[in-house]
Amino acid sequence: MSEEMQRIVLAKRPEGRPGPENFRLENVAIPEPGDGEVLLRVLYMSLDPYMRGRMDDAKSYATPIGIDEQMGGGAVGEVIESRSDQFAPGDFAMGMFGWATHGVVAARELRKIDPAVAPITTALGVLGMPGFTGWYGLTEIGKPKSGETLVVGAATGPVGSMVGQFARHKGLRVVGVAGGADKCAYAVDELGFDACIDHRDAADARALRAKMAEACPGGVDIYFENVAGKTLEAVLPLMNVAGRIPLCGMIAWYNAGALGAGENQGPDRLPKMWRTILVNRLTVTGFIISDHFDRYGEFVKQAGPLVGQGKIRFREDVTEGLENAPAAFLRMLDGKNFGKTLVKVS
Amino acid sequence: MSEEMQRIVLAKRPEGRPGPENFRLENVAIPEPGDGEVLLRVLYMSLDPYMRGRMDDAKSYATPIGIDEQMGGGAVGEVIESRSDQFAPGDFAMGMFGWATHGVVAARELRKIDPAVAPITTALGVLGMPGFTGWYGLTEIGKPKSGETLVVGAATGPVGSMVGQFARHKGLRVVGVAGGADKCAYAVDELGFDACIDHRDAADARALRAKMAEACPGGVDIYFENVAGKTLEAVLPLMNVAGRIPLCGMIAWYNAGALGAGENQGPDRLPKMWRTILVNRLTVTGFIISDHFDRYGEFVKQAGPLVGQGKIRFREDVTEGLENAPAAFLRMLDGKNFGKTLVKVS
Repeated sequence: MSEEMQRIVLAKRPEGRPGPENFRLENVAIPEPGDGEVLLRVLYMSLDPYMRGRMDDAKSYATPIGIDEQMGGGAVGEVIESRSDQFAPGDFAMGMFGWATHGVVAARELRKIDPAVAPITTALGVLGMPGFTGWYGLTEIGKPKSGETLVVGAATGPVGSMVGQFARHKGLRVVGVAGGADKCAYAVDELGFDACIDHRDAADARALRAKMAEACPGGVDIYFENVAGKTLEAVLPLMNVAGRIPLCGMIAWYNAGALGAGENQGPDRLPKMWRTILVNRLTVTGFIISDHFDRYGEFVKQAGPLVGQGKIRFREDVTEGLENAPAAFLRMLDGKNFGKTLVKVS
Repeated sequence: MSEEMQRIVLAKRPEGRPGPENFRLENVAIPEPGDGEVLLRVLYMSLDPYMRGRMDDAKSYATPIGIDEQMGGGAVGEVIESRSDQFAPGDFAMGMFGWATHGVVAARELRKIDPAVAPITTALGVLGMPGFTGWYGLTEIGKPKSGETLVVGAATGPVGSMVGQFARHKGLRVVGVAGGADKCAYAVDELGFDACIDHRDAADARALRAKMAEACPGGVDIYFENVAGKTLEAVLPLMNVAGRIPLCGMIAWYNAGALGAGENQGPDRLPKMWRTILVNRLTVTGFIISDHFDRYGEFVKQAGPLVGQGKIRFREDVTEGLENAPAAFLRMLDGKNFGKTLVKVS
């Protein structure tokens, strides 16, 4: 096959906040599928905060992306050539194609999507990895009990909105944190959160804490941690005894130069954190969703019908064109997306 | 009763490291026991790191001791007058008498001790609150599995020595950290630890980590946290995926001015800690042993025979005279005790 495809590679590692200079759009030959492999044309690709971590060289849960290597990530595509009896041209599938217009993937690493059940993009969001992350962390680590109070950041994102809506479904009081009045209105009016606090409307962690204390009169039993930063600082003193903190991300710190080998300026908040964990008998548990794919079927069984019935709602933030993926990614890291960030590739 | 007793009160709150000026020895009338109460003459009193926390005004798991209030704590005594049918003069009992020569306590808050079973001082150490703390945190939160590696600080103290010996009993590789060559030799030769690292022999956390990495070739699955500081910093990068950190104390930070309202100078190590918890999928759980007294009987059933058979050994560091309790307490906070710190009161 002599046709060309486009892809985006990591041009150089960012120091702190990435910019367009960290990415490069390339034309390469479309690879041929081998035995058991499938060639797909990418329809939508997913942009997720974890990708920022893979741009660094530090030890992480995923191998760092090499310089000049293609940016990785999930996408949905249409099969255009198959050397597997499990897929035929015209099938839709989700897989880790990365930032590219085409991809060749082993059939066993693809998940077939039935477009009649739900829009194919939900395989990247509410019913995909982000939704599964929210569900797993909430149910398995958060251990929610009816009547408890939950706080979640990035409330209108695909993880936060699943966490909050599923927790509401379980009978919890749900308080979101999001950046902007429009997002907060959406969290309350559309997603059914009990309250949502605009962190841009709070000058610092102290001001945010005051609003949060008002919204959580009974304290906080579960803080679903996917943002860290000011939200973490605000919520921590409100945690109830025996509170749980499922920890799957910390987007506020991804660009801080604080992670990996580098360290932040003081004050050192670790002793205070350690003391809070002790005094309030908290449990903080880090988790990475790829460890738990054996539970994915159970998630879809529980959450799928709720999505189908409109009881769990979702919102997507779609950018057109692979070449615009870096700008959309940077917008998302700045919290300027509204809903699950997707790029419509073709 | 017109006789007098002696007690030690909190004279003023410490700023950072306490000194003799924070305590005052007083003579007061011996109180009369009311209905259901018992008067005891204190034989031995316990000094424990948690008492440092109660000297501060900050929110803690125990109410702060008020200025001019008696210092609290556990002790064993002999009943000299009883208005309860559960105790008779001559009985031995353990209770929260605080720093004093005598105490009046409700009979239901006392635990009778049979001196024929084990020395009465073990009710304050290896078979008392410290030993129970070690056992509970290790078994319930640490969830030890044979073949795993455990690290514990203050290895020759009453908590650390129970953790390490019980973990050895469960088939784990046990590496202690202690201050001084004599303590390390004791941990290995007498307590049966696989290795013990002298933190005074390591210039900084990096040097300590190098020694620890050597002693833990398979990484660390459980870090039993009762010291924090340099030991925590050293062990953290060695934690294996799915590692557990039961957290019951942080003696290295009690005097740091870092806890409570104050904050330490930087660098800020919180982002790095948060990232390590995420990347290595760690679980950090704070616990306070007084929440779990319902499990005390089970602990004594498991650990008592091992102590009786000499399979779990213990060491005591005894100071004579109530008036010397403050100095003994400060020595302990400086890590200069060797074994469970006790004061022989009479």
